[in-house]
Amino acid sequence: MISKANVIYTGQYCQLSRDELVAMVEKSMSQKRFKHVLGVEEMALSLAKLNGESLEKASIAALAHDYAKERPDEEMQKLIREKQFDLELLRFGNQIWHGIVGAYLVQQELSVTDEDILTAIRLHTTGAKEMSLLAKIIYVADYVEVGRSFPGVEQSRQLALSDLDAAVAYETEHTLLHLIKQKALIYPKTIETYNQWVSQK
Amino acid sequence: MISKANVIYTGQYCQLSRDELVAMVEKSMSQKRFKHVLGVEEMALSLAKLNGESLEKASIAALAHDYAKERPDEEMQKLIREKQFDLELLRFGNQIWHGIVGAYLVQQELSVTDEDILTAIRLHTTGAKEMSLLAKIIYVADYVEVGRSFPGVEQSRQLALSDLDAAVAYETEHTLLHLIKQKALIYPKTIETYNQWVSQK
Repeated sequence: MISKANVIYTGQYCQLSRDELVAMVEKSMSQKRFKHVLGVEEMALSLAKLNGESLEKASIAALAHDYAKERPDEEMQKLIREKQFDLELLRFGNQIWHGIVGAYLVQQELSVTDEDILTAIRLHTTGAKEMSLLAKIIYVADYVEVGRSFPGVEQSRQLALSDLDAAVAYETEHTLLHLIKQKALIYPKTIETYNQWVSQK
Repeated sequence: MISKANVIYTGQYCQLSRDELVAMVEKSMSQKRFKHVLGVEEMALSLAKLNGESLEKASIAALAHDYAKERPDEEMQKLIREKQFDLELLRFGNQIWHGIVGAYLVQQELSVTDEDILTAIRLHTTGAKEMSLLAKIIYVADYVEVGRSFPGVEQSRQLALSDLDAAVAYETEHTLLHLIKQKALIYPKTIETYNQWVSQK
């Protein structure tokens, strides 16, 4: 396990110190979700170390990824309308918004300026056809962090640690199957993620 | 069962007689597929009668729906490039092309002029967010015709005869699950069909 104390915030990606960022994030959500966020940071740091990504970027992206998860729907809908987001988003809910619209709030309110971090947050619920190393790390860490429990979680955690791309595929496939089982709306970009990372023909 | 002899071809949708259309279709495919096509016609006529659709349109659309299924890939790729189809189609195969591009060939070579029939052929493998009664009939008849055998086929046949919209949903859900199980590419419009007909939230 990587001690968070070893992660140095240089100020080049976010103007807050880690303590300030943690405090802002904690204030924005329930304790249960905050615990999840710390779990995602821990897993993201492990994946960053294994795959040669900046620990600082992994820490910031992980801590901020669910920053907008508990915003009122009305606020998110207003942002979608006023900030030129794709209006198709209005058919969906916060499950999709908190990544895509959340990245905007992270930039505005948490002073995160790095585009790679913002994109990783933007894509963390849907994935994408093209994903940076950091985006893959946040997408996967969110799915397999230590607090998660679902059938096969241990297997997918091992996969994450041994083969990040295979973990992206595993998560995408199982998320889609879960959504269909629930008869939930599917965000169209999820299919682009599937076609890129899961489909073999 | 509706006798095909009762279906009168008036010439308003297709300039061929039924015998001429059947002969053209039979010449374009294997005997196995031709048998399937006749099964789809029979089921489409039953569904048309049950749902108040024109038997003539159902017969023409069913007979012509797989007309391009055995065209060489090179010919279909050339049409996609030359006839202003979405070039994204090139990522897919004849499984998708024979509906979308096939409708063009049906219009050109089988003298089918009716837009509702052509759209039903165009959409028969992917479905769509908006489907006419005829499009639903062809989509469902293709899935449950008498020659089909898969786990649950009898149940889905009964559903088709009792509730056409529910059969559209059933087929869409199970086709998607099947594609994911096969790790096959998913045509993005299939998700619009799913979101419209299957998703409940």
